Amino acid sequence: MKKLIVQKYGGTSVANPEMIKNVARRIVAYRDKGFELVVVVSAPGDTTDELIELAHQITPYPQEREMDMLLSTGEQISCALLAMAIQKLGYKAISFTGLQVGILTDSTHTKARIINIDTRRIIEELNKGNIVIVAGFQGVSQNQDITTLGRGGSDLSAVALAKVLGAKLCEIYTDVEGIYTTDPRIVPEARKLKKISYDEMLEMASLGAQVMQARSIELAKKFDIPIYVRSAFNNRRGTYIVKEEKKMLEGPVISAVTLSRNEAKLTICDVPDRPGIAANLFTEIASGGINVDMIVQNVSHTGRTDISFTVLKPDLRKTLKITKKVAREIDAGEVIYDEDIARVSIVGVGMKSHPGVASLMFSALARHKINIEMISTSEISISCVIRKKFVEEAVRALHEAFKLGKK
Amino acid sequence: MKKLIVQKYGGTSVANPEMIKNVARRIVAYRDKGFELVVVVSAPGDTTDELIELAHQITPYPQEREMDMLLSTGEQISCALLAMAIQKLGYKAISFTGLQVGILTDSTHTKARIINIDTRRIIEELNKGNIVIVAGFQGVSQNQDITTLGRGGSDLSAVALAKVLGAKLCEIYTDVEGIYTTDPRIVPEARKLKKISYDEMLEMASLGAQVMQARSIELAKKFDIPIYVRSAFNNRRGTYIVKEEKKMLEGPVISAVTLSRNEAKLTICDVPDRPGIAANLFTEIASGGINVDMIVQNVSHTGRTDISFTVLKPDLRKTLKITKKVAREIDAGEVIYDEDIARVSIVGVGMKSHPGVASLMFSALARHKINIEMISTSEISISCVIRKKFVEEAVRALHEAFKLGKK
Repeated sequence: MKKLIVQKYGGTSVANPEMIKNVARRIVAYRDKGFELVVVVSAPGDTTDELIELAHQITPYPQEREMDMLLSTGEQISCALLAMAIQKLGYKAISFTGLQVGILTDSTHTKARIINIDTRRIIEELNKGNIVIVAGFQGVSQNQDITTLGRGGSDLSAVALAKVLGAKLCEIYTDVEGIYTTDPRIVPEARKLKKISYDEMLEMASLGAQVMQARSIELAKKFDIPIYVRSAFNNRRGTYIVKEEKKMLEGPVISAVTLSRNEAKLTICDVPDRPGIAANLFTEIASGGINVDMIVQNVSHTGRTDISFTVLKPDLRKTLKITKKVAREIDAGEVIYDEDIARVSIVGVGMKSHPGVASLMFSALARHKINIEMISTSEISISCVIRKKFVEEAVRALHEAFKLGKK
Repeated sequence: MKKLIVQKYGGTSVANPEMIKNVARRIVAYRDKGFELVVVVSAPGDTTDELIELAHQITPYPQEREMDMLLSTGEQISCALLAMAIQKLGYKAISFTGLQVGILTDSTHTKARIINIDTRRIIEELNKGNIVIVAGFQGVSQNQDITTLGRGGSDLSAVALAKVLGAKLCEIYTDVEGIYTTDPRIVPEARKLKKISYDEMLEMASLGAQVMQARSIELAKKFDIPIYVRSAFNNRRGTYIVKEEKKMLEGPVISAVTLSRNEAKLTICDVPDRPGIAANLFTEIASGGINVDMIVQNVSHTGRTDISFTVLKPDLRKTLKITKKVAREIDAGEVIYDEDIARVSIVGVGMKSHPGVASLMFSALARHKINIEMISTSEISISCVIRKKFVEEAVRALHEAFKLGKK
């Protein structure tokens, strides 16, 4: 299919009828340029949170199948309204739920994985001249049950549709103008990037940047689908997320500084240092559905050691319970936790070929007398856990040290 | 299937999480008595009106396919929440949209007709021990588009499911306790009926009683499915709607007095009295999607006559426009209208075999000096149009004249 674009509009851009009309005007402007369009929409504004609240008034632990049934209505509402708004402008449009359009997933309710998309109906409607609107975030399992794809799942719907339809570009319209070298609210000199590699974006997403869902970037990377992140509220240029290029390697060593205040640190003290202990602990935590982020275990000289790790704050209570149980079983000491931490990270594919990046990071923090409590590294990122109150100072220090600001 | 009941809960009984929990308790009480249950729910409270309002903020004339896509979310929300509430009580439940459960309709969006229901999934889930919750008011067309069944369509969903599943009873839970001899707010002596025939109920529905959708009663009559109308808020006995029985014929002549304040009268004056004139007029009005209720044409001695008819008030403006156009075309006189009218009707299968019912009605009104402006009759009802200000007095007079009150 030639000249087909997939566009995705986030919940903040379809929060009310006026905004939906604005989105419709944007879409038909593309249509006028001769593009075929498949548009993915999220639920309007706070609808998803309101539906979750309704469910929790019924029961603290709603069954996940019913939760998907409930939550999928949000996107169905916005896609019907958007189709109406486009029709009002005199263009042909038709809306579909995930089920209707054949977004087949496994049956892992609330975080289903896409297996396949049946493109027949979409292509049929495109051929009739329709702008096709698809409810994001949702699919259907083999036995016709509605599933959802996890928080931010509309991004995944958009990328997956771009893949199966052979679209040349997947545009993500959101409430920020693109990807920045760091949070512009903290560092006014932060620069919007023209492009960034999938790997860097993935790393940033997992390190706290909330622009796009990590799974959707993985999928885009796997099938090499270019993504263009831009504002739903103005026409300024955004940021392309693309395959890593030679040119990019010769570019800046570091692309961005990210931060996260949403983690808590746990430490099990006085752990017997024998094989299998860590495996035991983290298996139990994983089976509780909790993602552990950084893990640090010191080399032990005494036969006993401390293990520290971080989890997302909402998971802290559940993690504490599991960790205390495991600590008793393995005859370890007390379990302590700390919510006053933050993480700063630097991300860049350039660090693969540039030595000395870590030492530059550590020196910059040291100059500001910011103590580093945990360190973890990946091939293209370095993260430090520090006291939460220093996090903005740390971000500014690193943004300056790596010369990321506007010229 | 033995001991299967279909229950339908109206929007006012599932308006918020507390009320949904109450409905869940009712349902599991039936389960405890050994019944298999298929439960149809309407959208919570004012949800449907709120969604319509959203659509109208986008466009005054939304496309009907998209309207169905939008409105069907209301029932999806309540059926998911109800399933959660039942599960919370420790019982097995599963919810379905009309599409998922295979309620196949034609593609007349916003007022689709049911063609067939695929019962396989419902029976499968009943056999697994589930209470099956089905979103009312909605179905799916042959090409997988979501359709809705018109206002009050959840009643139709319930009756149709009772039919295809071979249920012995279809219970309609609503915000009134049953069918009364007349509106108890007007006549405190009004009596709740133990049973009423399909035909009488149909007549009452079309004469202004809003307890149940007329199409659903037609369907129940066609397949002889007993309906039990009762309150969702208490356990008092309600009213059975059943096939006309011999016993009922020997019972009271008149079952109920109904009223409607929602009509307006139009008169075309000075109409040339030649064949085809009335056909012409009412064909044009019907093609505008307007239902005409009563029609009166006086016998003409002069070669010219007056034609009066009533329509629902919301249709008055549109009807006036059409009628004036036709009046010009046929060379008739002026078109006048009157919104200050009301209709009182008496309904009862007994009048088929009892002469003198009409004269008793007219005399009762005459005793109260209430002038009759139009009369129309059916096999089991007589309606009179009167001045609106007299309507409550007329209802009380008729209720007394036919001795319908409590003994």
